[in-house]
Amino acid sequence: MSTLSPDQLEARLREIGATRYHRQHPFHKMLHGGECTKGQVQAWALNRYYYQAMIPVKDASLIARCSDSDVRREWRSRLVDHDGEKKSEGGIARWLKLTDGLQLNRDYVASYRGLLPSTRFAVDAYVNFVRDRTLLEAIASSLTELFSPQIISERIEGMLKHYDFVTAETLAYFSQRPPQAERDSRFALDYVKTRAVTPEAQQGVLLALQFKCDVLWAMLDALYHAYVIPGHIPPGAFAPEEKDQR
Amino acid sequence: MSTLSPDQLEARLREIGATRYHRQHPFHKMLHGGECTKGQVQAWALNRYYYQAMIPVKDASLIARCSDSDVRREWRSRLVDHDGEKKSEGGIARWLKLTDGLQLNRDYVASYRGLLPSTRFAVDAYVNFVRDRTLLEAIASSLTELFSPQIISERIEGMLKHYDFVTAETLAYFSQRPPQAERDSRFALDYVKTRAVTPEAQQGVLLALQFKCDVLWAMLDALYHAYVIPGHIPPGAFAPEEKDQR
Repeated sequence: MSTLSPDQLEARLREIGATRYHRQHPFHKMLHGGECTKGQVQAWALNRYYYQAMIPVKDASLIARCSDSDVRREWRSRLVDHDGEKKSEGGIARWLKLTDGLQLNRDYVASYRGLLPSTRFAVDAYVNFVRDRTLLEAIASSLTELFSPQIISERIEGMLKHYDFVTAETLAYFSQRPPQAERDSRFALDYVKTRAVTPEAQQGVLLALQFKCDVLWAMLDALYHAYVIPGHIPPGAFAPEEKDQR
Repeated sequence: MSTLSPDQLEARLREIGATRYHRQHPFHKMLHGGECTKGQVQAWALNRYYYQAMIPVKDASLIARCSDSDVRREWRSRLVDHDGEKKSEGGIARWLKLTDGLQLNRDYVASYRGLLPSTRFAVDAYVNFVRDRTLLEAIASSLTELFSPQIISERIEGMLKHYDFVTAETLAYFSQRPPQAERDSRFALDYVKTRAVTPEAQQGVLLALQFKCDVLWAMLDALYHAYVIPGHIPPGAFAPEEKDQR
């Protein structure tokens, strides 16, 4: 194992994104290709809400273990992005506009009662990873944002075109995210390129991104299994209404 | 919410088992019904190995937080069951006999390299649950063993009957487990019936068993998704050889 140059490290990270980021997942393709029923879109939004809701928790746990004031200040903007300055603002509030628009009851969504257990296990694995691994690995695991502007533009365009139950207003979450993700991922990429200067640290960074891709992939696996294969919704999980299954 | 009698609590626990234990899962039915390919049986054994391997870790973490010597001594027998007195003994070693018998490379199995990410997330969620929740909840989460003798007998009978690549010797793990599971689950059931005497504690016990059922169920969901639906194996996970897919 030899040390990669910063640009070689970036190239390896982008390679992981190209092969393992969930843009390649069959469920993503169904979603933006207009092949989902309303019930499947509801299930996706409901489950993904848990991910959105835990993001500031994992970001705060990252800040909590960081001894560098500059990094903490930079990372704090993520808390603002997701929790907002007021209750009605921020990424979580905008995600609830999406679930509202899909006619999901807000209390039900926020209660997590209908979640697939696998969604919870995958998201919790991410939160625990950020809490338990090195700061460098924790930061590297956020690098899926390098690839999110593209998936988001596919999603907005595809969903608006194909689903009459989706409007630009309900997709407000996504129109806000790309500039935030670009700013955040630029910072994180610079950080890992500057700080990961041994083969071991670079290996840690690559595996952290791979782990995070696995998390996002596993979330879509669970959705596909439960909501695309008839009769496979696990006991207790959200079941779309009859009319939304067509 | 009112307090249940100990026998009412037991009845509620058995109800959870009847509806949520993975005996009802389509993949279990395929497995013991002879409908799996050899590759699917390999994938099951490989992924389940991670569960087996982590069981003594979760049991040790339970013992580590228990201030009652009697409970610790009782629980210690589980470490012996799984890790054995010698390297060649115990449940983990017997599970490797099964993966050997299925022609899986032992180093590959033990490396966890081929695991489905969802298997790891589900099993780690169980280990974390036992480490982080109350001792009562940790003990209650082991109560799926109340239902395991039945599933094991179905599995042994079904697998021996249907698969020529499975022998009584490779299934040695299962022939040892039922008396251990009966002894262990009797202890755990007595413990929760005696100690869970408030509505809150009883609710915690019921949710702990439900959580554990979700873990086992999610493991089979992941196997079904990856190995029954063609083309859905996640990046990097075990891929059966061509000849074992038929």
